Amino acid sequence: MSQLEIEETTGRTERKTGTRKALLQAAMTLVGEGRSFTSLGLREIARQAGVVPNAFYRHFRNTDELGLELVVETGITLRRLLREARQIDPSRGSMLRRSVRVYLDYVKANRLQFQFIASERAGGSRILRLAIRTDVTHFTNEMAQDMRAIGQYNDLPTPRLQMVCGLIVMTMLAAATDILDLPPGQPLLEAEMEENFVQQLHVILLGASHWHEKGGR
Amino acid sequence: MSQLEIEETTGRTERKTGTRKALLQAAMTLVGEGRSFTSLGLREIARQAGVVPNAFYRHFRNTDELGLELVVETGITLRRLLREARQIDPSRGSMLRRSVRVYLDYVKANRLQFQFIASERAGGSRILRLAIRTDVTHFTNEMAQDMRAIGQYNDLPTPRLQMVCGLIVMTMLAAATDILDLPPGQPLLEAEMEENFVQQLHVILLGASHWHEKGGR
Repeated sequence: MSQLEIEETTGRTERKTGTRKALLQAAMTLVGEGRSFTSLGLREIARQAGVVPNAFYRHFRNTDELGLELVVETGITLRRLLREARQIDPSRGSMLRRSVRVYLDYVKANRLQFQFIASERAGGSRILRLAIRTDVTHFTNEMAQDMRAIGQYNDLPTPRLQMVCGLIVMTMLAAATDILDLPPGQPLLEAEMEENFVQQLHVILLGASHWHEKGGR
Repeated sequence: MSQLEIEETTGRTERKTGTRKALLQAAMTLVGEGRSFTSLGLREIARQAGVVPNAFYRHFRNTDELGLELVVETGITLRRLLREARQIDPSRGSMLRRSVRVYLDYVKANRLQFQFIASERAGGSRILRLAIRTDVTHFTNEMAQDMRAIGQYNDLPTPRLQMVCGLIVMTMLAAATDILDLPPGQPLLEAEMEENFVQQLHVILLGASHWHEKGGR
């Protein structure tokens, strides 16, 4: 392959990646504007992305396939985030508070992705709902492994630890929805919401650390 | 007013109530089929209800007004439920388990209402989202008052008790979504889900009962 051919191929790949990204972004933007994913047609997504409808088919067979890729991409984002925020330690309140701040900043910086997950987690497409649920279970188990690795909650059997992590992840997703729905320019409301979120996580971790008292029941 | 006139008025009122109910039921059915509420037109709702579009305007100014009434109606359902399930006591595992059973049976018997709340809680209509959030806050405070009335968590300051109840209500709503999405004829999966839900509530209540140790922090 000549240098020119390589450059042409690279150019095509980049254009292809660009269109693909534009289509994914377009779908997220439309959901962010209040549309439900199931109501989106591929022509509409293509129009929003500024490409012809045919371009859609070069990347996705249908809108469901695009939706599933959005779930996967958002999953990667969330997993990276969880890795950053993983060192939640109930005995150190300030650490929990710092993790919460990292997370909420992340949510605000990735508004469209979180809006997509929040609205489609209980949305009309069963395929997307189940894909999101599988991803959430995946994060949950990863968080449980992380907690094990740093030696937290050694008294909790693994299934219990996963159950506690499920509760934490659910609380995190609910907090994301809450913060994204706050009217802009309400720092006091936002601070109250953040404080509430910190306290809820604290109650969960406190309960987890006392689980052994009940002999696992 | 003659007896005949009274009977005619009653008949009209009943027909009106019937049409109103049919329109509300039609919108819930469409959402239950996977449609998002924001994508529903009033003609479609009227068609599903088996009435002419003009009949819609005799009951609601627009679809938002119908949606808000659905939120209010579902709120009344949920509140009745919470009153039944309110006596959650962490020291008596079987009581918690019984309350969970009552709740899940209720969710299954009121599938459409819960699907409506679950999908529109993070759905495209900001008006409905905020109305649902207001209602959820209302239930949360009612639950906190109930717990106070029966003398539970006397060590928790009221704002903390409300925060704990918020966590419980959120867990209840998430469990409703989970159970409604189970494929039919999966008693083992359903039992596992129920057990997970019981344990999550148990962790929350355990954390709440140990809150005072941390001096409210």
